[in-house]
Amino acid sequence: MAGSAGSVGIVEAKRAVFEEPFRFRSGAEIPRFELMYETYGTLNAARSNAVLVCHALNASHHVAGTYAAEADNVGFWDNLVGPGKPLDTDRFFVIGNNYIGGCFGSTGPTSVNPATGKPYGADFPVVTVEDWVAAQARLADQLGIERFAAVIGGSLGAMQALQWALAYPDRIGHSLVIASTPRLSAQNIAFNEVARQAIVTDPDFHGGHYYEHGVVPRRGLRIARMIGHITYLSDDAMMEKFGRVMRRASLGFDFDVDFEIESYLRHQGDKFSTYFDANTYLRITKALDYYDPAVDFGGDLARSFARAKAAFLVVSFKSDWRFAPARSRAMVKALLDNRRIVSYLELDAPGGHDAFLLEDPRYHGALRAYFENIEL
Amino acid sequence: MAGSAGSVGIVEAKRAVFEEPFRFRSGAEIPRFELMYETYGTLNAARSNAVLVCHALNASHHVAGTYAAEADNVGFWDNLVGPGKPLDTDRFFVIGNNYIGGCFGSTGPTSVNPATGKPYGADFPVVTVEDWVAAQARLADQLGIERFAAVIGGSLGAMQALQWALAYPDRIGHSLVIASTPRLSAQNIAFNEVARQAIVTDPDFHGGHYYEHGVVPRRGLRIARMIGHITYLSDDAMMEKFGRVMRRASLGFDFDVDFEIESYLRHQGDKFSTYFDANTYLRITKALDYYDPAVDFGGDLARSFARAKAAFLVVSFKSDWRFAPARSRAMVKALLDNRRIVSYLELDAPGGHDAFLLEDPRYHGALRAYFENIEL
Repeated sequence: MAGSAGSVGIVEAKRAVFEEPFRFRSGAEIPRFELMYETYGTLNAARSNAVLVCHALNASHHVAGTYAAEADNVGFWDNLVGPGKPLDTDRFFVIGNNYIGGCFGSTGPTSVNPATGKPYGADFPVVTVEDWVAAQARLADQLGIERFAAVIGGSLGAMQALQWALAYPDRIGHSLVIASTPRLSAQNIAFNEVARQAIVTDPDFHGGHYYEHGVVPRRGLRIARMIGHITYLSDDAMMEKFGRVMRRASLGFDFDVDFEIESYLRHQGDKFSTYFDANTYLRITKALDYYDPAVDFGGDLARSFARAKAAFLVVSFKSDWRFAPARSRAMVKALLDNRRIVSYLELDAPGGHDAFLLEDPRYHGALRAYFENIEL
Repeated sequence: MAGSAGSVGIVEAKRAVFEEPFRFRSGAEIPRFELMYETYGTLNAARSNAVLVCHALNASHHVAGTYAAEADNVGFWDNLVGPGKPLDTDRFFVIGNNYIGGCFGSTGPTSVNPATGKPYGADFPVVTVEDWVAAQARLADQLGIERFAAVIGGSLGAMQALQWALAYPDRIGHSLVIASTPRLSAQNIAFNEVARQAIVTDPDFHGGHYYEHGVVPRRGLRIARMIGHITYLSDDAMMEKFGRVMRRASLGFDFDVDFEIESYLRHQGDKFSTYFDANTYLRITKALDYYDPAVDFGGDLARSFARAKAAFLVVSFKSDWRFAPARSRAMVKALLDNRRIVSYLELDAPGGHDAFLLEDPRYHGALRAYFENIEL
């Protein structure tokens, strides 16, 4: 099918149920859990062609295709995954998974706490990247996948791809780490903290138990999302896309929308606040803040990467100021210090952090070539 | 006194009263207004040695020295202004001014509206950089200053220094434009809009009439300030200052403060929300968004600068990602296109946008030399 890339078509989300406890890195435990996932393509007889796709903040297990009842609901990486696409479902068995603690069906703060019969809410444990990956390993067990040909992700999805190589070195052939960082900078943490403070100081937050009050901290979520969006785009990309273009004929001299960029941000914030769970948002940002594989190695990234056995593809984008290329280069250096096999691509794509989701021919060409070279 | 730089010592704020209407760029009018100001040094007989210092967001007319009753309340640019300092008060008569619409004593949203006997609140007009400068010109008239030897400012203070050169070309000898931009980018507007939305969606905002309700939108102001602080520091400077240093012995797995940077931001936000007026904050950000001297010239900065007669010193800092050096270079280019006299200094100081307030020897050395060369 090479050359005639298509969609995986209509897909169905599946639910994996685990009737046994899950112990989080924090020490907290839940008695059972469920994980939403989707699969595309066919697992081969040797069970050697599975690829796990890890999602970032505002995405889910829905990686490719559409749903029968929701033709417009296209998977978040549909441009990458499908028959004849760079991650070719004619060759690979691709799995998308909504991580534990998420708000798209996997057990998380909105799920019912068996101990109380009410949603966990604030009582849901703080999750970590390590927890996400540990839960995914349980999913892999249940699906009979001993080893992934590859794990791929962008942004915090890439942290999971990296963590797979560190936590389960024998269960992953290739780790594709895109637009990411091995640990957040102070500025990254700062943006997360502002978003969290916007949420927890919203009077509708009720200490995280807002479900019981029949409200959601919509104002806070809206602000959190607006802040996020600024960090996903580059200054140049925003200028290119919105510039100083106005929404009204002349300056309004009030606090309604004057400029296109204001309208865009308000719209993104409004939309997000209607469907995303605030408790999940808080936990995702903490998972990001906490992730630091080198912390037990005196901050030495090279020493912390010694565990990894996978081959790596690291990709960064010059216009990404959230996780700038220097962060990716630090990972490449640490891998090379360990004589790991690593390919590195630094693209001058203009899309900012979000470039990892966009269809750039050089970017997708490199991913295609990389996947083609993976031996099954 | 050269070589023995000192403080201007104890100073007193003064109030200039204007019992005549002020018409804003928006067309709105107020029947009278007051401006707070301070002066340092002595106006010479020729009245030729006056320098106006324009302040940025979180500052006021209090540029140098301290108050008798508040020994700790040091002026915001005390390291620059004083006897023997780069802006030498033994030679210059320096004036600080809290701009109209501010919240440090000049007429603004917290002032009493003579028409109602209550604070203006939401009814105070949206101010612009042009309005700030027009009001300062009235202050200069009242002080008998026909022409400033120089007008200096950093950030949005620098926009005022620029606007002085454009609006009153015959009343300013030198314009010192530091860490600034001739107009905001889409990203700059975006950050301002998030801050505004945090304020106006705070339930305590009451449409801007919160004074009457005995509350202030503290949550919103706090978030606005936290966002602001991130943009004032560079990623590197923040990493240098805070890194991933923790406040507790180990990760808390909750939403209290884990990292130093979180503690710092919360503290800054808390402090700011106790004294800064939200209606002023909203107006300052709009003034920034609206400023664009080139808008009436088809966006052509060079054509818009043709009016200016002043000599210019433009200073930028490489670590300033809020108003990056490219913005300053665009101004320099537009000035050179008009054959204006312009000096440009681009420093690799690490302080980010806030570097304009810091005491860097190269920076202050250049300012000292520039002021020394100003003929009175």
